[in-house]
Amino acid sequence: MYKATVIIKRRPSILDPQGKAVEKGAQLLGFNNVSGTRIGKYIEFFVNTDDENSATEEVKKYSEKLLANPIMEDFEYSLEKVS
Amino acid sequence: MYKATVIIKRRPSILDPQGKAVEKGAQLLGFNNVSGTRIGKYIEFFVNTDDENSATEEVKKYSEKLLANPIMEDFEYSLEKVS
Repeated sequence: MYKATVIIKRRPSILDPQGKAVEKGAQLLGFNNVSGTRIGKYIEFFVNTDDENSATEEVKKYSEKLLANPIMEDFEYSLEKVS
Repeated sequence: MYKATVIIKRRPSILDPQGKAVEKGAQLLGFNNVSGTRIGKYIEFFVNTDDENSATEEVKKYSEKLLANPIMEDFEYSLEKVS
């Protein structure tokens, strides 16, 4: 079994309204040193196979088809063998 | 200036309905090896100070007061000096 971690970020050229909104809140609370907040996703799951290649394939496909929006997001992943 | 990365995860004891929903989609698409999907946040921002201690303080406070929900989420952060 493998534990997969996928990080999904909006492409740098694409605006991040959620980050902007949080940052406005930050300024209202007095966090004046904070800038460029961008909010992505951090996804963890298990892949039930002992073959590293097929685990990698599954993680890539899962990310491309369900987790990330390929139009405006990029993803990176890592795999770690467990049990 | 520091670049901060904050990872926010739901506590393990707290259900993750978003992860469950995505995983249901996965099963419908034929990803039968995937399980335990949990979706957190990956947040990046800049802290405009050259003092590491005050950057750390600001990142902690920003995370506690705005980014994470202290009732059901944990966060971890890292700092990296840039220019």
